[in-house]
Amino acid sequence: MELNSDPDRLFPVDPRTREIARGLYASVAELPIISPHGHVDPRMLLDDEPFPNPADLLLRYDHYVTRLLHASGIHLNELGVPDRSGAAPTAEPREAWRNFCANWHLFAGTASGYWFRHEFTELFGITEQPDASNADRLYDMISEVLKLPSFRPRALFADFGIEVLATTDDPLDDLAAHDALAADPLFTGRVTPTFRPDAYLNPASPAFISNIERLAAWNGTAADDYAGYVSALEQRRRHFVEHGAFSADHGVLQPLTVDLDRDEAASLYARAVRGKLSDAEAAVFQGHMLLESARMSVEDGLVMTVHPGVARNHSTPTFERFGPDTGHDVPVRTEYVENLRPLLQRYGNIPDFHLVLFSVDETSYSREIAPLAGFYQSLYIGAPWWFLDAPDAVQRFRSAVTETAGFYRSSGFIDDTRAFLSIPARHDMARRLDSAFLARLVAEGRLDEPMAQKIAIDLVDSLPRKVFKL
Amino acid sequence: MELNSDPDRLFPVDPRTREIARGLYASVAELPIISPHGHVDPRMLLDDEPFPNPADLLLRYDHYVTRLLHASGIHLNELGVPDRSGAAPTAEPREAWRNFCANWHLFAGTASGYWFRHEFTELFGITEQPDASNADRLYDMISEVLKLPSFRPRALFADFGIEVLATTDDPLDDLAAHDALAADPLFTGRVTPTFRPDAYLNPASPAFISNIERLAAWNGTAADDYAGYVSALEQRRRHFVEHGAFSADHGVLQPLTVDLDRDEAASLYARAVRGKLSDAEAAVFQGHMLLESARMSVEDGLVMTVHPGVARNHSTPTFERFGPDTGHDVPVRTEYVENLRPLLQRYGNIPDFHLVLFSVDETSYSREIAPLAGFYQSLYIGAPWWFLDAPDAVQRFRSAVTETAGFYRSSGFIDDTRAFLSIPARHDMARRLDSAFLARLVAEGRLDEPMAQKIAIDLVDSLPRKVFKL
Amino acid sequence: MELNSDPDRLFPVDPRTREIARGLYASVAELPIISPHGHVDPRMLLDDEPFPNPADLLLRYDHYVTRLLHASGIHLNELGVPDRSGAAPTAEPREAWRNFCANWHLFAGTASGYWFRHEFTELFGITEQPDASNADRLYDMISEVLKLPSFRPRALFADFGIEVLATTDDPLDDLAAHDALAADPLFTGRVTPTFRPDAYLNPASPAFISNIERLAAWNGTAADDYAGYVSALEQRRRHFVEHGAFSADHGVLQPLTVDLDRDEAASLYARAVRGKLSDAEAAVFQGHMLLESARMSVEDGLVMTVHPGVARNHSTPTFERFGPDTGHDVPVRTEYVENLRPLLQRYGNIPDFHLVLFSVDETSYSREIAPLAGFYQSLYIGAPWWFLDAPDAVQRFRSAVTETAGFYRSSGFIDDTRAFLSIPARHDMARRLDSAFLARLVAEGRLDEPMAQKIAIDLVDSLPRKVFKL
Repeated sequence: MELNSDPDRLFPVDPRTREIARGLYASVAELPIISPHGHVDPRMLLDDEPFPNPADLLLRYDHYVTRLLHASGIHLNELGVPDRSGAAPTAEPREAWRNFCANWHLFAGTASGYWFRHEFTELFGITEQPDASNADRLYDMISEVLKLPSFRPRALFADFGIEVLATTDDPLDDLAAHDALAADPLFTGRVTPTFRPDAYLNPASPAFISNIERLAAWNGTAADDYAGYVSALEQRRRHFVEHGAFSADHGVLQPLTVDLDRDEAASLYARAVRGKLSDAEAAVFQGHMLLESARMSVEDGLVMTVHPGVARNHSTPTFERFGPDTGHDVPVRTEYVENLRPLLQRYGNIPDFHLVLFSVDETSYSREIAPLAGFYQSLYIGAPWWFLDAPDAVQRFRSAVTETAGFYRSSGFIDDTRAFLSIPARHDMARRLDSAFLARLVAEGRLDEPMAQKIAIDLVDSLPRKVFKL
Repeated sequence: MELNSDPDRLFPVDPRTREIARGLYASVAELPIISPHGHVDPRMLLDDEPFPNPADLLLRYDHYVTRLLHASGIHLNELGVPDRSGAAPTAEPREAWRNFCANWHLFAGTASGYWFRHEFTELFGITEQPDASNADRLYDMISEVLKLPSFRPRALFADFGIEVLATTDDPLDDLAAHDALAADPLFTGRVTPTFRPDAYLNPASPAFISNIERLAAWNGTAADDYAGYVSALEQRRRHFVEHGAFSADHGVLQPLTVDLDRDEAASLYARAVRGKLSDAEAAVFQGHMLLESARMSVEDGLVMTVHPGVARNHSTPTFERFGPDTGHDVPVRTEYVENLRPLLQRYGNIPDFHLVLFSVDETSYSREIAPLAGFYQSLYIGAPWWFLDAPDAVQRFRSAVTETAGFYRSSGFIDDTRAFLSIPARHDMARRLDSAFLARLVAEGRLDEPMAQKIAIDLVDSLPRKVFKL
Repeated sequence: MELNSDPDRLFPVDPRTREIARGLYASVAELPIISPHGHVDPRMLLDDEPFPNPADLLLRYDHYVTRLLHASGIHLNELGVPDRSGAAPTAEPREAWRNFCANWHLFAGTASGYWFRHEFTELFGITEQPDASNADRLYDMISEVLKLPSFRPRALFADFGIEVLATTDDPLDDLAAHDALAADPLFTGRVTPTFRPDAYLNPASPAFISNIERLAAWNGTAADDYAGYVSALEQRRRHFVEHGAFSADHGVLQPLTVDLDRDEAASLYARAVRGKLSDAEAAVFQGHMLLESARMSVEDGLVMTVHPGVARNHSTPTFERFGPDTGHDVPVRTEYVENLRPLLQRYGNIPDFHLVLFSVDETSYSREIAPLAGFYQSLYIGAPWWFLDAPDAVQRFRSAVTETAGFYRSSGFIDDTRAFLSIPARHDMARRLDSAFLARLVAEGRLDEPMAQKIAIDLVDSLPRKVFKL
């Protein structure tokens, strides 16, 4: 079967509306990519080595992909996912690739399938649907491309038109890779770190105690010294700011914020250090630290991004064998209105404080997030995230939030990916979908074309720059 | 930039479907407006004074509008919203208007933006998008129109084709304005009061105690006399019925109904009068009074409308400074099935009792409200409310409820507005959207055109008359 | 008014997309019907008697239909629904039919209205919309058709192209009707039982105690012997397997699973037999038995289907008078992620164990069910169920699940009906809707037509065969 790349993909099917969408898209298609949140490793750009092979590049570390193959009966081992227990040998890259190609139909209609289609056709010039019979040929074809100098990470970075790329980093990271990259005269891109302190703020995290011990050691204070803990976090944030960071990212099960006084917080902390908190107390402490993190953002200017609502590592046997980020994180209902009230009451109308709220529970868009962002000056609506970063879901998102909050309370697109090669596919998808959405409003007589044009550009250009203080 | 008024606005983009929608809309476009629930002040029609200026008329009292400008960094003071604390002077009308015009792009794609577009083009003949440069010119242009005799409230009432307009009134209101208006031979419209007793039924309301003291004083009973309290409410409802009211409206956080016996209720009431109820007890008492209100509706025939699910005054600092209804009421998840069970078990199949359920949590439409209204004879599905009264949200609503409950269990459109000038824009929007929805069903072979025609008319005409007993 | 049958019904309105949908539909329209879950009585096919009259066949036992007429003021008695209290005589069939025809407009836009339209035009050749004036004529016309030999149940079974039809049966059913049907050389269809043990597993069920007493008596063990109870359930399942059953179906309020040890379970059971469990304990015991049922499915191979989230018999007065399944079962919010975790942790990746999850809470599709089914090998996404088995709801379903889980984690269509005549209408509707959905993806450049073709056929053919082990 042929694999086609439709230049009108994702545009509305009605011919007149499609024509409007084409025009809008044309004005944003080539604008630089701003990627203010993601998970690419800065060392990849520092080292600038060729990508090893198709499976490592496209498959084994992408849990969007391995999960769906796993669900369909292909064991994670057979996809080359590292097995921490050593219980079974892991497939060779070519073998993993064959398993993927033979099951290509599973990705029909999925977001990953869409991105692959873009990458295969636009980056590798593939013109046939992968299947069992052409797997080896495609593997060899991609492998050849990976050897080209034009396919090194830095060359692609330039070719993709990336202006800013934010990574996600541990608070104690020395950011040496970022430093080295910034100092390298041969690399002119902007790659910035992001402060991600979850495992230092959440007593229920398995690494919490060892993390705060390391943090205290770095700070030269006692592990159970709450003032030292807070001060150390503030200093690490400052370190990130000095190395170009513009945001701090928070992953939480619920976006609970709790206003404790200093003594209560110190007392909980002292017990947290000893692993003595109940689940409820741990949630309260984490809620307090989320509010504290907002205070720090007010003070040091880091944009606060919150990614709530994911129950991590749902399958304990899989987690024990393959570790985290192996495809069994699952969304749960998420509540924003009461949970964020202490934070918003206190900091929600401080204009220089920016809070970007994400969701994997799309019911919250029209009910909670858009109404909140339609009032609070600090609050921006994050782009559809993770399971919702897909064509239909993005249209549902725009439909759910725009009528209440307009376009200018949204953050612009965020790819949030560790799959470097998918970055242009994802940003291109977002631009096409926003063009399609705007075109429909024009065709329905709700928006004039020049205004739609302005909005299309602002969504890609001025909005992310403003929201992320770029 | 030009501002256009598309005669086909909100119709489906597909040409054949659009043609069907046009035909359906043509048969309802000019039908009289029935507005069975809203917040227009009857004194406006009694006094029939010219509207003061564009900002007072269109901007400063419309929290749909001020909220979004506020979110984007324009302080409520700068929009002319009265500051109760006197902390800062409030902008002059022309200044407020300039702030609005300079930020007109914020309303692109919003419901308010859509209504403004209708009002600007159809009522004021404006042909350019507001912006910083034309703000003064538009202000002067609208100000001239406001001086015309044809732009007085009564002239507009007639011109808009309003047949019935319900206001929303305090239970102790003497309804003198309604009386005077009804007695005025120069005004032939029908303007009716609506009984809205929330602040007399909810012990958590700040005004509860002073309200029930005034109610008891009016009734000549002791404030802590539960029988007197119930009887006084019944008498005030009778007063409203005698003055033309056809409905009683209830705003609650959750539509909880609780079946207490008289002694339990009296005991809670006696403590409520003294401000002694816990939050949980207050909720139970309010739930009991919601059930009692249903009983009273069964007895006196007032249609019961319930507007649940809004957390009021989310930002305490804003509330303290600017008061209620200033843009920070936020929807929350709302549960209907268990909460309303005591009420529906008892009164749900009494045909002359009408209960209209609204929602700002759109997940309840397909899951709870449509299934309930598809069985209970008393229950009607309220039109999409507040944040959901917008083009896409209305289409999602019809899609969510119709397949389970059909068209004849819905209430017809309700504008629920204090923005008098937006009434025709809102009803026109609803008629266009229902025409569009019906046209799609016809084009998909699910409905024949003559039946669609009948339904389009019934939704505007016979259904609201039946549901609201007009 | 005429009643038309549009050969393009449910296809997208855009001409090019419609053309693609037509092509996809053409390849699946005539494939055999696989009905792996439903409520047809096997005796109907065993006896093969003519259907008695139009009202009995189409109206009085279909609570989708009687509920909406009831909501609109037609009493259940007037529709021929049997009144258990004998309080009022029940309408004659012709009278019930007249009440239906006079209110035909209530079904416009509903799922039932769509199926009726299909049945009236395709099976009975009716060409006019039912109304008060033609009710008797239509009644007589249908009655004549019902006398034809070609309209006997077995003839229709063949004519409908049904390959497999599963019924739903009590665990203690001897399955004699199934046996007799299988032994009948004149009937070549496949009609299989389904094990439905709810009223034996849920201590809150009114029939629980009498059921487990009958079960224990059959087994020759004491009613309070937990080991005997579990063993008896296992034996009854084996009995079903031996008689061709391929699935066990579970209806629960929430899909809670609880991992109790044997002693805890035995102790709760002993108290359950005496009716001594609190509501919370009953839920825990039922949750334990849902987990036990999964274990039994792992062992005996029966596919586990779970239908959660319906509050049964919402109106007690109606239940007391007319019994269950009379139109007042109402969906509630349903939680899958935490509730199913114990089950999925233990059995979710055993490939031969198949679990099909249904929902009447459509918010769970994108948030919970698709993400779970996109990882766990045992988990399949059930077709939109009950209130969601309707054109728009099915499109929302596909849109919600496909981008995360693709097409191959869904179960294929399940009609779940007791309305035998509606079976082809329902399967045809599902095929049209999937063709429409796939056609849109093709038109949007997200899917190539040959792949869409393959998927359309797999959804009707290979997927249900695989999921239900046919």
